[in-house]
Amino acid sequence: MSTAAVDPKKSDPLYRLRHSLAHIMAQAILEVRPKAKLAFGPPVEFGFYYDFDFGGEPLGEAELTDIENRMRRIVKEKQPFVQSFKSLDEAVDLLEKSDQDYKVEYARELVETGKAGDEGLGFYTNGPFTDMCEGPHLSHTGEVPKGCFKLDRISGAYWRGDEKRPMLSRVYGLAFPSKEELEDYIQRRKLAQERDHRKLGNELDLFFMDEDVGVGLPLWMPNGAVIREELEKWAKEVEFRAGYQRVSTPSITRAQLYHTSGHLPYYAESMYPPMTVDENDEYYLRPMNCPHHHKIYGVRPRSHRDLPLRLAEYGNTYRYEKHGSLAGLLRVRAMCMNDAHIYCTPEQVEQEFRAVMDMYSMYYSHLRMGNFRVRLSLHDSNSDKFIGNAAEWERSEAIVRDVLKNLGIEFEEESGEAAFYGPKVDIQVKNLLGREETVSTCQLDFVVAERFDLEYTDADGQKKRPYILHRAPLSTHERMISFLIEFYGGAFPTWMAPIQVQIVPVNDTVLDYAQEIEQRLRNDLFRIQIDSSDESFNKKIRTAVTHKIPNIWILGNKEKEQRNITWRRYCSKLQQTVPLDHAAHALERLRKERMMDNFEDVALPVGG
Amino acid sequence: MSTAAVDPKKSDPLYRLRHSLAHIMAQAILEVRPKAKLAFGPPVEFGFYYDFDFGGEPLGEAELTDIENRMRRIVKEKQPFVQSFKSLDEAVDLLEKSDQDYKVEYARELVETGKAGDEGLGFYTNGPFTDMCEGPHLSHTGEVPKGCFKLDRISGAYWRGDEKRPMLSRVYGLAFPSKEELEDYIQRRKLAQERDHRKLGNELDLFFMDEDVGVGLPLWMPNGAVIREELEKWAKEVEFRAGYQRVSTPSITRAQLYHTSGHLPYYAESMYPPMTVDENDEYYLRPMNCPHHHKIYGVRPRSHRDLPLRLAEYGNTYRYEKHGSLAGLLRVRAMCMNDAHIYCTPEQVEQEFRAVMDMYSMYYSHLRMGNFRVRLSLHDSNSDKFIGNAAEWERSEAIVRDVLKNLGIEFEEESGEAAFYGPKVDIQVKNLLGREETVSTCQLDFVVAERFDLEYTDADGQKKRPYILHRAPLSTHERMISFLIEFYGGAFPTWMAPIQVQIVPVNDTVLDYAQEIEQRLRNDLFRIQIDSSDESFNKKIRTAVTHKIPNIWILGNKEKEQRNITWRRYCSKLQQTVPLDHAAHALERLRKERMMDNFEDVALPVGG
Repeated sequence: MSTAAVDPKKSDPLYRLRHSLAHIMAQAILEVRPKAKLAFGPPVEFGFYYDFDFGGEPLGEAELTDIENRMRRIVKEKQPFVQSFKSLDEAVDLLEKSDQDYKVEYARELVETGKAGDEGLGFYTNGPFTDMCEGPHLSHTGEVPKGCFKLDRISGAYWRGDEKRPMLSRVYGLAFPSKEELEDYIQRRKLAQERDHRKLGNELDLFFMDEDVGVGLPLWMPNGAVIREELEKWAKEVEFRAGYQRVSTPSITRAQLYHTSGHLPYYAESMYPPMTVDENDEYYLRPMNCPHHHKIYGVRPRSHRDLPLRLAEYGNTYRYEKHGSLAGLLRVRAMCMNDAHIYCTPEQVEQEFRAVMDMYSMYYSHLRMGNFRVRLSLHDSNSDKFIGNAAEWERSEAIVRDVLKNLGIEFEEESGEAAFYGPKVDIQVKNLLGREETVSTCQLDFVVAERFDLEYTDADGQKKRPYILHRAPLSTHERMISFLIEFYGGAFPTWMAPIQVQIVPVNDTVLDYAQEIEQRLRNDLFRIQIDSSDESFNKKIRTAVTHKIPNIWILGNKEKEQRNITWRRYCSKLQQTVPLDHAAHALERLRKERMMDNFEDVALPVGG
Repeated sequence: MSTAAVDPKKSDPLYRLRHSLAHIMAQAILEVRPKAKLAFGPPVEFGFYYDFDFGGEPLGEAELTDIENRMRRIVKEKQPFVQSFKSLDEAVDLLEKSDQDYKVEYARELVETGKAGDEGLGFYTNGPFTDMCEGPHLSHTGEVPKGCFKLDRISGAYWRGDEKRPMLSRVYGLAFPSKEELEDYIQRRKLAQERDHRKLGNELDLFFMDEDVGVGLPLWMPNGAVIREELEKWAKEVEFRAGYQRVSTPSITRAQLYHTSGHLPYYAESMYPPMTVDENDEYYLRPMNCPHHHKIYGVRPRSHRDLPLRLAEYGNTYRYEKHGSLAGLLRVRAMCMNDAHIYCTPEQVEQEFRAVMDMYSMYYSHLRMGNFRVRLSLHDSNSDKFIGNAAEWERSEAIVRDVLKNLGIEFEEESGEAAFYGPKVDIQVKNLLGREETVSTCQLDFVVAERFDLEYTDADGQKKRPYILHRAPLSTHERMISFLIEFYGGAFPTWMAPIQVQIVPVNDTVLDYAQEIEQRLRNDLFRIQIDSSDESFNKKIRTAVTHKIPNIWILGNKEKEQRNITWRRYCSKLQQTVPLDHAAHALERLRKERMMDNFEDVALPVGG
């Protein structure tokens, strides 16, 4: 969970509430640890924290309830927050009196770096508590709404984030405008923790990282590899029917390619260092697939009759993300992207963009990822980050805007968020905590054809530059699957599930029937297994549920005699006994139609 | 074509024949270029060559017929080959008389390096021609069989292979024990040239290499990517039914992994140089997948009940092959391997090895690659290259040998060809010229489990080391497809063909019918296209044949009326008119059963 300081929109009432609560908490803590030294105590996303040096008397989490009670008392006392200003000497004098060394250091720094205001160093006092602080705060402690905060946990943090400086104790509190919002957040956080893709990834044997291989480089175990394969198979079918052609290109290249594309030197810091055979022969891991695809476009003369040319590849790419920014599958160093580049004429670009956006809608609605926002990212004419002339930008942005409008897609525009080579559409997905991430983008590129000298011969015999769409609706496997794990809580629909059917034989006499079924379905490429352990029936059911297997087929003597199976669904106690043939047929439909039977409203396609 | 010197099995009559022909050719050439200076003239695979410095009077290929005629005259003259020996002074004297500078240089070198024999420098004389040479030769020129040789071509070559020394003219001749064998070779070479996978790879838009990306790093165009995908799909089905589980792992790793595996430092020269983030954090492109898979085995405690564990991955690997050894797709720097590792108990190893060999047989017989030899590669107890004790080697080699015998597979044993960690079976395939390449191997590994500390808990509660099988029956995509292109001459069976059906409409009025068929089949994921160009009917047929498309569906008014199609097969003039539904059904069978309909004996599955 991020502890980055909240953007100090100090006019924001929530900022003032959280900031004031940090003071109130410090005041309460000083009541029980009068010798504690204060460091920083800012408002943050979801609440606030304060860093303390407790010397030899650390605070335990068990004491937080007592602190909370003291805070509530302070709130009841409606202590006014009073601002004052002091000169450096006055400030140091005051702070040294109470041995506040960290504050003294910071006061000196503020003055030395000219960050203290004209009036001097700001202080806020409420009741007996005074803290050096810029504010703003509530008028008085009584403005804290009832039940709106909760102390959360204690962790370690270095003074000034510097591991050579003292280790402090950071006490976190949650705070929201109302009790309801606080409770809602705690509820959502609990769910998010249960569904954390790193936790489920481990419990369900989906993936892991290994120190010897390297951080940010996931190794996918069989269960996780299944999910990748199923997404990939789906994408390949969808893209085939939409007229895409697949290519396959190496994940490395000589440096020359990136001098052409412009990745070198500008993108170098996000790339792995080069492999240097000699000074004229350096190889790089690719951070993206585009330049390789442009080479395929360029290897043959192209006519307008060949366009649109849609080159697709689930391409392996590598980016050297900073260690600190790595986060499970969400931000990794090795990723496999649902990539494609569409080369088209100016006349075709609108239709192609529309088809791509339709494909996005289809994917997201099928996967039931409704919780997203579409952002149209535009250039900023005041920035020098964007290549190309104003007219080109106008035209490209208008194309994208019109397509979104005509499709009835709601979107928000944001200046300065475009790619350097053209406008893009970002699909912004919210996770369970409501935090937004870009899951995928679709970009319109009117610049790179020039860099790679890509052209086509038009009907009039003229050589022209193609437009290029970069699109990756299913994102990278890593990012998409991190979302899916959390959205589905690890319970995947039958078509994606690592194990699709768990057969639970009630006794050994039906084992032959179980094996017959297993063999038949396995031959039809279904992922099926028999639980032939010595465990009790109930234990076997629990095992299947723990592994979030969507379908349990229970076989007893009666089922064997009548060639039926008794079908029980994940997390449901309803059972249904159906002929084996019907069951197999239903399973086939679940797979073929990629039914989202992990949602309750999707009925099992069992029938005559 | 290799020009490496033939292994000087000097007792080999073919060696003597080819060597003598080199002299006879030199003698003939000196008749027309008396000032030519001789360099080296060895026998080589398929014949012989001689290097000349022609000064200002280069020899043209048009003159080779005249030279051949002169050679035939020399043969008729039955000139005896007579050996003599000379001291360095005598030799230099003789050679300087005829300005043979290169020979003088070499004579001095032989003496200086002690390579001249005790008797002095050897010379052979036939008729008026004398050459410094070790022999051996035929008794006389008349022993050259009639019609057994042919002068082939002239190319450039540096003296001593050193690009700082003079460029010479190399005149090549072909020579075989008989006229028939020569003609057979020429015939096969013509076929091999027509079917060269680099030539067909370009003509059929399968793949290419690009200087900016790097040599040995193929980029697969859509037509080539189809073949990869189809092989991969097949392998995945076969492996799923055989109880394999798929994994997915990154193509890079920190150096630590290879210190554990032993690849570093021993294998380093075949690897790309490292990517150095800092001295404690070096990353390598992986040359093989095994260590990554071992990490997956090791991430969970394993029980004997989990074994055999079969982990499969079409894994991308990278090897820094020397520039000179790169050869189209046959030897590349980026490859994708049909890899899997089977972890099993000692009791299971025989059965698993047998199942793997069965899978090999199935693949090769299905693909009709009958032209292979099985080699059992054993350790050499006199070499220190092999890890593990003698008893382990005995046991492992016996297992593999017995499996091959019991399966009735013919094989040859070869000492010293094993992997350092265990015996292996090599599948040796001959190309059209009869040259043998290892297409894939299956290895039994009893060493690496120790290095990676891999273990399982046996039924008796003891921790034990698993055996590991390394297997890749379908080789790398690159190598396998290079063979398939040449074997099939680029004419792939329907299931692998980039375009499976070309629709040829006879006129525009049937275009709607053509489009209806295209849409229906494309929706069923068939690769189908309509030739709607303005070309003539015959030109359209020729185009489809040039692209080696296996099926042409011809549509005329009558076909449209009766909802038929007229089916014409690649390189066949037979046509068959069948109902569209039957045709679609037949196509489905060709694909589903992966029928090898590029062979004449496979009939089209058209029927009621």
